[in-house]
Amino acid sequence: MTIQTAVEELSKALGQKVQTGASIRALHGGNESYFDEVLPDAVVFPDSTADVQRVVQICAAHDCPIVPWGTGTSLEGHALAVRGGISLDMSSMAAVVEVNDGDMDCRVQPGCTREALNAELRATGLFFPVDPGANASLGGMAATRASGTTAVRYGTMRENVLAMEVVLADGRIIRTGSRARKSSAGYDLTKLIIGSEGTLGIITELTLRLHGQPEAAASAVCAFPDVECAVNAVQTTMQLGVPMARIEFLDAECVDAVNRADGRDMPLVPHLFMEFHGSETSVAEQAETVRGIVAEFGGSAFDWSTAQEVRAKLWHARHNAYYSIKALRPGCRAVTTDVCVPISALAQAVRETSADIAESPLTGPILGHVGDGNFHSALLIEDGNAQELAEAKRLSHRMAERALRLGGTVTGEHGVGMGKMKYMADEHGDGWQVMAAIKTALDPQNILNPGKMVEVN
Amino acid sequence: MTIQTAVEELSKALGQKVQTGASIRALHGGNESYFDEVLPDAVVFPDSTADVQRVVQICAAHDCPIVPWGTGTSLEGHALAVRGGISLDMSSMAAVVEVNDGDMDCRVQPGCTREALNAELRATGLFFPVDPGANASLGGMAATRASGTTAVRYGTMRENVLAMEVVLADGRIIRTGSRARKSSAGYDLTKLIIGSEGTLGIITELTLRLHGQPEAAASAVCAFPDVECAVNAVQTTMQLGVPMARIEFLDAECVDAVNRADGRDMPLVPHLFMEFHGSETSVAEQAETVRGIVAEFGGSAFDWSTAQEVRAKLWHARHNAYYSIKALRPGCRAVTTDVCVPISALAQAVRETSADIAESPLTGPILGHVGDGNFHSALLIEDGNAQELAEAKRLSHRMAERALRLGGTVTGEHGVGMGKMKYMADEHGDGWQVMAAIKTALDPQNILNPGKMVEVN
Repeated sequence: MTIQTAVEELSKALGQKVQTGASIRALHGGNESYFDEVLPDAVVFPDSTADVQRVVQICAAHDCPIVPWGTGTSLEGHALAVRGGISLDMSSMAAVVEVNDGDMDCRVQPGCTREALNAELRATGLFFPVDPGANASLGGMAATRASGTTAVRYGTMRENVLAMEVVLADGRIIRTGSRARKSSAGYDLTKLIIGSEGTLGIITELTLRLHGQPEAAASAVCAFPDVECAVNAVQTTMQLGVPMARIEFLDAECVDAVNRADGRDMPLVPHLFMEFHGSETSVAEQAETVRGIVAEFGGSAFDWSTAQEVRAKLWHARHNAYYSIKALRPGCRAVTTDVCVPISALAQAVRETSADIAESPLTGPILGHVGDGNFHSALLIEDGNAQELAEAKRLSHRMAERALRLGGTVTGEHGVGMGKMKYMADEHGDGWQVMAAIKTALDPQNILNPGKMVEVN
Repeated sequence: MTIQTAVEELSKALGQKVQTGASIRALHGGNESYFDEVLPDAVVFPDSTADVQRVVQICAAHDCPIVPWGTGTSLEGHALAVRGGISLDMSSMAAVVEVNDGDMDCRVQPGCTREALNAELRATGLFFPVDPGANASLGGMAATRASGTTAVRYGTMRENVLAMEVVLADGRIIRTGSRARKSSAGYDLTKLIIGSEGTLGIITELTLRLHGQPEAAASAVCAFPDVECAVNAVQTTMQLGVPMARIEFLDAECVDAVNRADGRDMPLVPHLFMEFHGSETSVAEQAETVRGIVAEFGGSAFDWSTAQEVRAKLWHARHNAYYSIKALRPGCRAVTTDVCVPISALAQAVRETSADIAESPLTGPILGHVGDGNFHSALLIEDGNAQELAEAKRLSHRMAERALRLGGTVTGEHGVGMGKMKYMADEHGDGWQVMAAIKTALDPQNILNPGKMVEVN
């Protein structure tokens, strides 16, 4: 009953910040994806780094697992307390601590969401670009090395987190990195924590790199006769160094879902949704270059706009695509895949995936951040239908294996969580053992999100 | 005599690839900076990953230190075998293994220099941008997280190494990363090895990100009334998001050194050397924007050129500045400092450093990659003059402390090596202990470049 003792001690120390009611535990035991519900023993709402330190110290004393929780938008079951213990809900630590206009950086608490930060930044002329679609917490985004539609231009969380405050498994508090733009002073602990999914430490503050709001922006939509043409247009665009702000692929089925949900009437063929950022001259020049490339690869007339309203609607449609796809089959669950391959292998990867899904009874539209070689399929299954889940897993497995065969990765941006553990040995070989050695060195009791990322004891 | 036994075993296994002659050991026992000569017991020239693995296995069996050697251009004594053992000279592993035009990446062996790679790439329309000045080996550049003049636009080695093959301390060979542009699959071992200075593993291959050669390029030079004006112009330029390819600061003394070495007649005031990359339209637009900013901050008429010859001469002068500065005092040694601060603190940091040096008997021109907040002073001392060395160290110490006080780092790009160990605890707090824990987990015998980076046994 060590977990029970820990929960009692936590309640004594933190009072109402520790909740054990069934409904709040259920809220923290579910997930956006297909994983079974797993209730934590308690949910703790720290409101300071000192609280987090106290929680870790108590949990360490009683071998109680700690699973950080952001907004619950993970697609790989990261935040499920699979070995019991507490869900550490960071939503009470959601402040924007400081914005440094002059250095184009800011400090935020981990529960702050990307939309909240951008709302706060609006008047400064700066913005935080990483955009995974969901209004995720910035701590969760760092923990999963999230990215999304704008990574092709602005990078992922890997490139946009300068520094962090982290509470280690033994309660020590460290600051990784500084506000300097670069450093050669030692092992890159910032990058080690980014993507570590709560297994090496609890992020209690982030220093983020901000970017200037572009002087001008334009969006464009165009249709292609087939996947190959669309992907080749993307590859050529990237090779020419056009600094695309977004370049998103939607297959015909995905276009159908967006049409239905959004009242659009795009032709049912593969599309690219694009965005250009820069000065007015530069945006016009970029668009002109891409218009030429699109024409070369048989793309449709280039539907181009600088109107804020048109752009907002387009990206709302893209962001909403996951839900538009789910609406194709009311009440379904989606098994979302997430592979990333070298761009030269992208057309083959998408084509073979499409063929697989076409032969399957499941519906699974494909969409992706193709400028990075990253794409997803949302495989729709009936909730509780074991046969369909098995089929979705089979398709997902083939995608993962294909990505590795083509020199890519089994997860471009969603993370390992529960879903991708089984591929870690294949992707990393002995590197996975190195990860386990690091985990053991920093969390010898294995109390930080145990059962994820690595296999130890 | 375990090291002696290791050297004998190595000779048996690798024959002529193991050298113990005094002159070759002396070549690998010197350094570009002020550190005392330390001769390794032997120098080993592996020509394959299998050789490196064999070396590591033999050294591990006999507790023999292994210190990787690239081109010997380190400024912090990284490659000195301070606890004896072997210098592992990677110059026989210098091939460009593969160039993937379509993915804009390549694979190289660690001994390949950046100039050799760029020569090989010339016909492809691609280039490798990271440019520390010296024609360093790419393995050495990764090991020290090098950067240089172009980092402001293209990033440092941190952003431009996609993946590596690494031989671990126990002889296992791992591949970190893949050719995918992004991944959320596990701890970022690539970033952990970058900047680890040979203490966690031996890099035997690198997958590098390449960039398209810009369609157009222009350089510009302008003079400023004082440091403040120059730095403020840089800050404004960065805030406006002008994608500068290079933006370099030289103080009046540095300008004097360049004038003398290069037959130029720049006025003896602070200067910025700049480079713009992009399409012809974009380069012209960038230059126009910066011309306005320069004027706003009292800068001189903007001496702008797209002529390849003018640009080449300018950057030759900049790259050569270290030697031009040393030529101010024939036969001297340079103690090169290397701090990086948030750009809002840059003017203060440079001003206070200038004042310190002005009050000192030493000459120490200041120059830097100011778009990143990174700058150096090359403090000239008479070889063997202990009093001058002590004074240079005093000035360097004040710079390091100032950088930390201003939220920066004690090394922007030169690395820790011998010179910056003493600041690691101050910069990282308990984070330095975390680094030691990682080191111990991956190299429990402490045979990989022992005595550097962390303090263990």
